[in-house]
Amino acid sequence: MRHLISPLDFSVGELDKLMDLANDIEATPEKYAHACAGKTLATLFYEPSTRTRLSHEAAMYNLGGNVLGFSSANSSSATKGESVSDTLRMISCYADICAMRHPKEGAATVACKHSGIPVINAGDGGHQHPTQTLADLLTIRSLKGHLDNMTIGLCGDLKFGRTVHSLIHALVRYPGIRFVLISPEELKLPGYIRSDVLDKKNIPYEEVERLEDALPKLDLLYMTRVQKERFFNEEDYVRMKDFYILDAAKMKLAPEDMYVLHPLPRVNEISVEVDDDPRAAYFKQAQYGVYIRMALILTLLEIEV
Amino acid sequence: MRHLISPLDFSVGELDKLMDLANDIEATPEKYAHACAGKTLATLFYEPSTRTRLSHEAAMYNLGGNVLGFSSANSSSATKGESVSDTLRMISCYADICAMRHPKEGAATVACKHSGIPVINAGDGGHQHPTQTLADLLTIRSLKGHLDNMTIGLCGDLKFGRTVHSLIHALVRYPGIRFVLISPEELKLPGYIRSDVLDKKNIPYEEVERLEDALPKLDLLYMTRVQKERFFNEEDYVRMKDFYILDAAKMKLAPEDMYVLHPLPRVNEISVEVDDDPRAAYFKQAQYGVYIRMALILTLLEIEV
Amino acid sequence: MRHLISPLDFSVGELDKLMDLANDIEATPEKYAHACAGKTLATLFYEPSTRTRLSHEAAMYNLGGNVLGFSSANSSSATKGESVSDTLRMISCYADICAMRHPKEGAATVACKHSGIPVINAGDGGHQHPTQTLADLLTIRSLKGHLDNMTIGLCGDLKFGRTVHSLIHALVRYPGIRFVLISPEELKLPGYIRSDVLDKKNIPYEEVERLEDALPKLDLLYMTRVQKERFFNEEDYVRMKDFYILDAAKMKLAPEDMYVLHPLPRVNEISVEVDDDPRAAYFKQAQYGVYIRMALILTLLEIEV
Repeated sequence: MRHLISPLDFSVGELDKLMDLANDIEATPEKYAHACAGKTLATLFYEPSTRTRLSHEAAMYNLGGNVLGFSSANSSSATKGESVSDTLRMISCYADICAMRHPKEGAATVACKHSGIPVINAGDGGHQHPTQTLADLLTIRSLKGHLDNMTIGLCGDLKFGRTVHSLIHALVRYPGIRFVLISPEELKLPGYIRSDVLDKKNIPYEEVERLEDALPKLDLLYMTRVQKERFFNEEDYVRMKDFYILDAAKMKLAPEDMYVLHPLPRVNEISVEVDDDPRAAYFKQAQYGVYIRMALILTLLEIEV
Repeated sequence: MRHLISPLDFSVGELDKLMDLANDIEATPEKYAHACAGKTLATLFYEPSTRTRLSHEAAMYNLGGNVLGFSSANSSSATKGESVSDTLRMISCYADICAMRHPKEGAATVACKHSGIPVINAGDGGHQHPTQTLADLLTIRSLKGHLDNMTIGLCGDLKFGRTVHSLIHALVRYPGIRFVLISPEELKLPGYIRSDVLDKKNIPYEEVERLEDALPKLDLLYMTRVQKERFFNEEDYVRMKDFYILDAAKMKLAPEDMYVLHPLPRVNEISVEVDDDPRAAYFKQAQYGVYIRMALILTLLEIEV
Repeated sequence: MRHLISPLDFSVGELDKLMDLANDIEATPEKYAHACAGKTLATLFYEPSTRTRLSHEAAMYNLGGNVLGFSSANSSSATKGESVSDTLRMISCYADICAMRHPKEGAATVACKHSGIPVINAGDGGHQHPTQTLADLLTIRSLKGHLDNMTIGLCGDLKFGRTVHSLIHALVRYPGIRFVLISPEELKLPGYIRSDVLDKKNIPYEEVERLEDALPKLDLLYMTRVQKERFFNEEDYVRMKDFYILDAAKMKLAPEDMYVLHPLPRVNEISVEVDDDPRAAYFKQAQYGVYIRMALILTLLEIEV
């Protein structure tokens, strides 16, 4: 039985097949409308995440399946001291596949050990959030036509941003990838990722402090949120916050085919005036998130249509 | 694309068609059992409301569709500072139609602005609760055979009762409507509704303090709750509370065809001994609430059976 | 209309039919995959219980039906002062059958009084939890081939354990049942059950303090949790806690066909090393819990396949 714990659980070749399937689903959704009839997805969310939970649920419904589960730890047996491993063995009696979010790093790994059903890691602490990464890859591949030979700007909180770390790990497997890391000093990409991932694999990258400096050379811009709390002092925050807000004026500096991604929710780091720009792809990204999860569910359940 | 934000969004003619559809659903539910197969309803409840949420969910299930969503703001991304408008754009990727309840007045209006799917306002603060009004209208029309030429008693908290205000707005569009407003001084219908709606349209009405005085002349009685907290002093509350409790003795004063409605939940304003009276229509009203929401979903999704 | 409020609501003969149906569902689940198409189960959980709720939901989905409801009192109208009886009348408009868990003893009895749909008591305070008992009986009958002529060990908290009390009531209806009651002095089976149930029906039983002393003579062992808080003093707890932990060493003392049951969740009263023992039946028990609930839903809805 196969699980999805880390975005690297799938080889580049397997990912290609998964994304081909997702694009086929996008093109001909009616072909898949009953693929999971009689199957049930359990969504076990030990911490709330509407977006991720609903995305999995939408995926299962689009495949004709059912969904059960819980949306926060309060309403789960976790409070009675049951181990995640036992919960999964129980859930294996109730469902055919499960998506689990847990505040503890490594929880998904423990969960799948005795699970009788495939486990999708829907986020384990600050560790992994592989379905977001798969959605990001599918979005990029669908919009640009390929995943290699690209200059990708990563902007915002590169220090704590789990999404960005996962995406880097996933993208360096493709040839010709270059990064422009756009962040304040305080929120730079951690040294261990720079040395262990970028340097070791000879991935070219540069670090800049202003979004405007990076925009002209990007094929793709991946935005994330810069939280005020992350800054050491108010002064720095006030000085720099506008550097990381994407607006219509800044978009004029960007190439015509530079798509903008964002894992959402956004607060104010992308101005709403950008939403109508054809390069704004963050809502499409949410849609691709459903397609890739549909493909993932089919693949893990070994259902061929 | 069409939404339901206010009960007046539909013209009288459109309402007639909607209610005809609801009555056809009541008569031949099996005809509609698969009308929404493959469609998904999102229930976005930023504040809990079991009754309204479950009524929409039941409606969608009766049409063969699916349901996803959240039942309180805690388990939603609202806490991450996402705008309602963004949430709706995201939900448009996950569902085909949505029902939203939000504590803020006007939230539904904002939500539908960028929504890619029809929005049903399931209550926005003290503002509107249009599907309750539609359910009320359908119940009256189904039981009495018409919506015009009636004397309607509105009893209880007429000051803060959103349901009653909406119902007045909706009923004054029909000819020959007269109101008897039954409430304590403290909870009288607000002046702006009396002047802007009743007086302006020359709708006859009288105000009385005792339910007993009104009952003999009513074609229909709409009960609401009188909350103790609304009174200025305990003495007034004790003196008057029984005036607004409907019991078997009071029902003897009412005409034989005077149906009793109540939006529910009731606490003690209708004695349980009234439940067996054939004129007690408040549980039927809950049932009509499902039929009208089925009709509404079909209409907003432009599905013809 | 029929409800399930107490495990004794069904005669021994009716239980046999129910368990036959459950075993047929186990053998040929596909036969039942659409038995409840178009039907809706309401899960009304006034206190959270993931396991019981999901088990009912899984049962309904396996029968091709839909599910709606709430998983805690917070998100219900209970907070508005509505009576359980009114809630059930409302829910009767939304669903075809309901499973209700409520913290108050007797709530289910009140609920079904005016209900328009069958009510399954999914636990009412410390009173009854009949579907657990039905699951226990089905598990025993499926594994042992019969429910009579057996020596059954009940281990742990026999004083407060609702599950154990219900199981005793249910098992004494079969001939040749003997009990070994294994518990610390503080947590012994209450006198009123010993006198009113065991003594009155001449059911042989013995009381022992150590699990090891009981194991060799058992046909079946039913484990429950011993909570530290139940002990009068820390000393007693430390002295005795290991007596009630089942591990691989203790399993060596048990007969080869002595199955181990546990209502779950377990904390540490069964060591995980026992999980691989073929006599460990507690996860099978969870699976049988789904089959018996499927049989129950079909029976209460009077659906024949």
